[in-house]
Amino acid sequence: MQVVKNIDEVRAQVREWKTQGLTVGLVPTMGYLHDGHASLIDASRRDNDRTVVSVFVNPMQFGPTEDFESYPRDLERDSKLVEVHGGDIIFNPEPYEMYHEGFSSFVDMTVLTQELCGLSRPVHFRGVCTVVSKLFNIVKPDRAYFGKKDAQQLAVIRHMVDDLNMDIEIIGCPIVRESNGLAMSSRNTYLSDAEKKAALVLSKAVFLGMDMVKNGEKNSSVIIGKMKKLIEAEPLARIDYVKIVDSATMQQIPILNRPVLCAMAVYIGSTRLIDNFFTDEIGGGSHGNINA
Amino acid sequence: MQVVKNIDEVRAQVREWKTQGLTVGLVPTMGYLHDGHASLIDASRRDNDRTVVSVFVNPMQFGPTEDFESYPRDLERDSKLVEVHGGDIIFNPEPYEMYHEGFSSFVDMTVLTQELCGLSRPVHFRGVCTVVSKLFNIVKPDRAYFGKKDAQQLAVIRHMVDDLNMDIEIIGCPIVRESNGLAMSSRNTYLSDAEKKAALVLSKAVFLGMDMVKNGEKNSSVIIGKMKKLIEAEPLARIDYVKIVDSATMQQIPILNRPVLCAMAVYIGSTRLIDNFFTDEIGGGSHGNINA
Repeated sequence: MQVVKNIDEVRAQVREWKTQGLTVGLVPTMGYLHDGHASLIDASRRDNDRTVVSVFVNPMQFGPTEDFESYPRDLERDSKLVEVHGGDIIFNPEPYEMYHEGFSSFVDMTVLTQELCGLSRPVHFRGVCTVVSKLFNIVKPDRAYFGKKDAQQLAVIRHMVDDLNMDIEIIGCPIVRESNGLAMSSRNTYLSDAEKKAALVLSKAVFLGMDMVKNGEKNSSVIIGKMKKLIEAEPLARIDYVKIVDSATMQQIPILNRPVLCAMAVYIGSTRLIDNFFTDEIGGGSHGNINA
Repeated sequence: MQVVKNIDEVRAQVREWKTQGLTVGLVPTMGYLHDGHASLIDASRRDNDRTVVSVFVNPMQFGPTEDFESYPRDLERDSKLVEVHGGDIIFNPEPYEMYHEGFSSFVDMTVLTQELCGLSRPVHFRGVCTVVSKLFNIVKPDRAYFGKKDAQQLAVIRHMVDDLNMDIEIIGCPIVRESNGLAMSSRNTYLSDAEKKAALVLSKAVFLGMDMVKNGEKNSSVIIGKMKKLIEAEPLARIDYVKIVDSATMQQIPILNRPVLCAMAVYIGSTRLIDNFFTDEIGGGSHGNINA
C-alpha cells in the first residue's frame, strides 16, 4: 500500500493497471477512517482488482462557518486501516494540488442539492459534485463506493453520473453502527462523553421509525412526529430536520405507498450528525444494519 | 463511415478501438459542416487513429430568444463531408438521448463565461461546458478539436478541462475563411446576398486590427476605435462588442504589452456573427489565416 500525493502519479499507476486489464474501485473519503469506510474498501476489494482510497478534506464542500479547519485528520491511522483492508493506494493530495490558483469550475444541479442537508449547507453539494467529478477524472475507476449514511450525497452523485454520462458504476453501502446503535462518523470524535450518550437519540429515532413502518404505519407525519418527540426529549439535541422523502428526488412523501427514505440531521451540542433508513431495507426480525 | 444515434453504441465502438490500442479524436460540432469543421477533422485524422465527429444542435446552449429551432441541419450533407475527410463515426443523438426526463446537472465556471459573448448570451457557456463534458464522458477521446473562431469557447473548455482534471488534450485550430475573407460559420446561411456583402465588415475590421498591431500600435482603445468606425460605416451592421482581452482570462487589456485576443460580435441584420484574431498569430507578409 502506498500513499500518493500528486495527480500525475496516481494517474500513471492507474494507467499501468488498466493496460494490464485490471479493474479499479475508488473509495472517496475525507479520511479519519472508521469501520464504515472499511466496509466500503471491503466492498471495492470484492468487486475490483485494485482499490484506490482517496483521503481529501475538500474545502469546497464546507461552508464559511463550518468545520473545515477542525475536521479530524490522521493519515498514519488511515494508512494502517487501508493497509489492513487491502487497499492498494491512498490518494492524499494537498488542497493546492486539487484547487490550483484560478480554479473556478464547478459541477452542480438544479434539483436535489437544495433539499434536506442542502438547506442548512447551501454550497455543500456543489463542492461534493465538483470534487467527486475531479476524482473520477483523475482515477477513472470502474466503480465508486459511497456510504448510505450520506443518503442525499449518494442520490446527488447517482444523478450527476447519470446526467453527465460518467461511465462509472456507483455502489451504495449500508450504514455501519457502533454496538450501541450510533452511526459511525468521523465527526463523532467531536462529541464529549455526555454528548455521545445524547447522540444515541438519532439511532433510537431511526429504530423507532423502522418499527412504526414495520408495524404498518403509512402516515409520514405520524412517523416523523413520534421520532421528533423522542429526539426533543434529549436536552443536548436540536433538530435540523426529520423528513420522509423519495430516495431519488428528495421530495417529501406524505403517505408511504412506495419505498422511501427517512432522513434526519440533528445537532448534538455544536456537532451536526445525520442518520437515516430506507423503508425497503428494513429487515424482518431485528433492525436492518446494526452491528449489534 | 457510420452514423450512430445512441450513446451505448458509440461507447461500444470506442471501447473496441481502445482495446486495440487505437487513439481517438473527437470533433464536437452542431452540424451543417463547412470547411472550418473539415479542417478540424483533418487535424484529428493527423493526430489520431480514429475520429468521431459529433453532430448535435445542443438546446442547452441556446437562450430562449435564440435560433435553436431555425439552426440549419443537414445530416446527409454532413455525412458526405465527414466521409470525404475520413472521419470514422458521426455521433448524432436526438435531444432526448442527451437530455432525458429529469435532467438537471450542469458544469459551469465563475470566470470567463460572463465576459464577451457571455454578456449577450448568459446561459450559453453553461450549455457548452455541460454538453462537452457529456460528449467527453461518452466518447472518452484522447484529443478534442475546437475552432479558434469561437475563441472564448476554446478558453472556457481549456479552463474546464484543466480545473476538472479531464484527461483530454484540447487542440485549437485556425479560423478558416471564404476567399473574400468572411470567417466560415454555419450561421452564414442565414444571410441574404446583401447581408453577405455587409458581413465582410467583420473580417475587414479583423484585417485592419491585424495591420495596426503589425505596424506597432499598442493602445487597445485606438485599435478598437478604428475597427468600430469601420464596422459602424456599414448600415446593416450593429456592434455587440469589439474587445481586446487576455486570451486565457477574457479580461480587457488596455496596452498590448503581451499577446492578446481581439474579438468581436456583430449583428448583420438579425444574424449574430463573431470573428477575431490572436496578436501572436499575425503572420509577416499577408494576413495569417486567410484562404485567399
